[in-house]
Amino acid sequence: MTAQALGHDKQTLISDQTLYKKIKITRGLLLVFHCSTISLFPVDSASTVPHLLPIFHEQEMTETVHESNGNGYLATFVGKNGWFATLCVHSHGLVTIDLQCFEHDDIGQLDKFLNALETKLKVLLNGIITRIKRLPALVRGAEVDRYGPTTDGRLIEYDMDQMVHEEDSAFQNIKIIHSQQYGNILILKDLISMGERDLAYNQAIMGEENYAGKDVLILGGADGGILSEMVKRKPKMVTMLDIDPKVIDLSKKYTRGACGNVLDNLKGDCYQIIVSDCVPVLRKYVQEGKTFDYVFNELTEIPNSREPEEDSAWEFLRHTLDMSVKVLRPSGKYLTQANGEVMTEALRLYEEELEKLSCQVGFSNKVVCVPFFMQQWVFYSVWKK
Amino acid sequence: MTAQALGHDKQTLISDQTLYKKIKITRGLLLVFHCSTISLFPVDSASTVPHLLPIFHEQEMTETVHESNGNGYLATFVGKNGWFATLCVHSHGLVTIDLQCFEHDDIGQLDKFLNALETKLKVLLNGIITRIKRLPALVRGAEVDRYGPTTDGRLIEYDMDQMVHEEDSAFQNIKIIHSQQYGNILILKDLISMGERDLAYNQAIMGEENYAGKDVLILGGADGGILSEMVKRKPKMVTMLDIDPKVIDLSKKYTRGACGNVLDNLKGDCYQIIVSDCVPVLRKYVQEGKTFDYVFNELTEIPNSREPEEDSAWEFLRHTLDMSVKVLRPSGKYLTQANGEVMTEALRLYEEELEKLSCQVGFSNKVVCVPFFMQQWVFYSVWKK
Repeated sequence: MTAQALGHDKQTLISDQTLYKKIKITRGLLLVFHCSTISLFPVDSASTVPHLLPIFHEQEMTETVHESNGNGYLATFVGKNGWFATLCVHSHGLVTIDLQCFEHDDIGQLDKFLNALETKLKVLLNGIITRIKRLPALVRGAEVDRYGPTTDGRLIEYDMDQMVHEEDSAFQNIKIIHSQQYGNILILKDLISMGERDLAYNQAIMGEENYAGKDVLILGGADGGILSEMVKRKPKMVTMLDIDPKVIDLSKKYTRGACGNVLDNLKGDCYQIIVSDCVPVLRKYVQEGKTFDYVFNELTEIPNSREPEEDSAWEFLRHTLDMSVKVLRPSGKYLTQANGEVMTEALRLYEEELEKLSCQVGFSNKVVCVPFFMQQWVFYSVWKK
Repeated sequence: MTAQALGHDKQTLISDQTLYKKIKITRGLLLVFHCSTISLFPVDSASTVPHLLPIFHEQEMTETVHESNGNGYLATFVGKNGWFATLCVHSHGLVTIDLQCFEHDDIGQLDKFLNALETKLKVLLNGIITRIKRLPALVRGAEVDRYGPTTDGRLIEYDMDQMVHEEDSAFQNIKIIHSQQYGNILILKDLISMGERDLAYNQAIMGEENYAGKDVLILGGADGGILSEMVKRKPKMVTMLDIDPKVIDLSKKYTRGACGNVLDNLKGDCYQIIVSDCVPVLRKYVQEGKTFDYVFNELTEIPNSREPEEDSAWEFLRHTLDMSVKVLRPSGKYLTQANGEVMTEALRLYEEELEKLSCQVGFSNKVVCVPFFMQQWVFYSVWKK
């Protein structure tokens, strides 16, 4: 990346940020009091709520008490400054306070308000509180959306702090977002693809194989992460097939920590990059009898289920996997990431597919933590029997 | 762990679960529509809200429209079944819908309701939506609290699914909670201490040193993780000092995946466990001139700041660190975890402390992902100059 290119992008970013600064961001502060959940200790809203109201009133908030249809006490509070709070006192012993405010609000004032509520509730419910929990604010409407579910549906806040670039290519939405821990992160179709400073993924998929003098095929992989690592291992020839030249261009520019200079040219001493849909090229290789020592699958992860909306993903996986095994030499290996360790059904379905290929195969797998996925991830190695 | 002991605990767990099943759990489903945040495309509540109301009414929810003091449209909806929803239409272009419901509610009905709102909004705001995001439910009041902030304050949902044991010892609250990915996890004073199936922490703190024939001191470490790994490396003698016999007992019982059988006896061929406050023992070692090749600090992580409430933690750290360096042999090393990689101020403060010790020291550090911490973690190695 040249200094000039960097300077240009900084300009673009600054103007974007100026635009976003005009906009209010909703911060949802969730303050959750978890009182004794044992029914021996119910929480009596009549003796708690009147003592809490003055704290809301101090903030110039006015309340609406709602008919809760037998589900305890429920009130909402609206402040002149746009603050909005909800107070629920469930009779079985769970008290929750949710507060929505704006990003430019005074954090000191907010903390004082929440601390006052917490202190008062500690006094009122002295002896029957089993847990008090104040959750970090959920920020909504920010330029960078920091929240993601893991593959098993857990809520995770990433450490992303700046949108570096966003663009739609002919094939997909592409985002480059900066992360404090992992440098620039490449995000394709809202799925994290690669972090600049995380080598665990490459190490996991490449394993301890000796690639010297070998013929290697990479399906996908436009981020250049595997290619860059592979050329250091002195292979005979690496062929990379990726459909999206835009991902190659953006990786070359923004995630050089991962791809180095390997994407600067489509051809090097021991590698070639073919910008093409991999399916017709693989089909041609099968017809011509061209074979490889290693085939890397960097196309997609294993779908989570057999739901109808996953049909085309399974069809694509099955088709490319079958052709990949066909172009493997007898001693060759097909190497792929799969899915989260906890997605046992997805992994079972994948192993079912492996049993149904036109060539008989053997396989093994291993679990490795990929830090920027924030979960344990499974990698497979497949070979011809 | 004997089969009998296991059987007994299962009984206890079942009765606990029965108790908790009686209790309603609030599930906060957050559905966030993030529309274009560019002011060229404001969202007009007058032309959107009337089309959304029938979807709430279908669920027998009745609305209260609040005076929002110029902050857009704000309404709350209460359902007969206890559902509670909030609809905010910020005029600058952020639409948020929050829904609170109960754990026993019909997920199918919930999904249908949220999908109907999403579909309608997509039609109404066709062309000006830049992001649609539905966040996973935040579950509050559950037996196991799955949410934690990382050291840098990010919201994280862990994969913990069962409270195995909870007890207050004379020194601290101790929890053993089961995690899908990491087995049983030991939690001391609400801080994750160790996961049964995560070897990265031990590998990181122990590094590539040759411990054969060496004298090793472990300060803290009652979970037995380092001790168990250390005895495999054939040291001359390992001395472990921990104040809390209850942690030793519970680790021995519930996290054998990490400690093996090393905690079954307080003495082994090449180790001894001394149940004691480490401070007087370290002081005695200093006075007697007793020295070690390696000292491991498993006592506390580095405090985040110099705020007054951290004073005693810094005082303890300083005191034990100073004595630890005093009992190091000239070629010896003091090995410790520190804090998250992003906590640069905490790390800077720690290095300041290292400069102020009564012996001059050199140090190095490294960053390693500790999977169950869900972030990059810094480890230090300190030696006498």
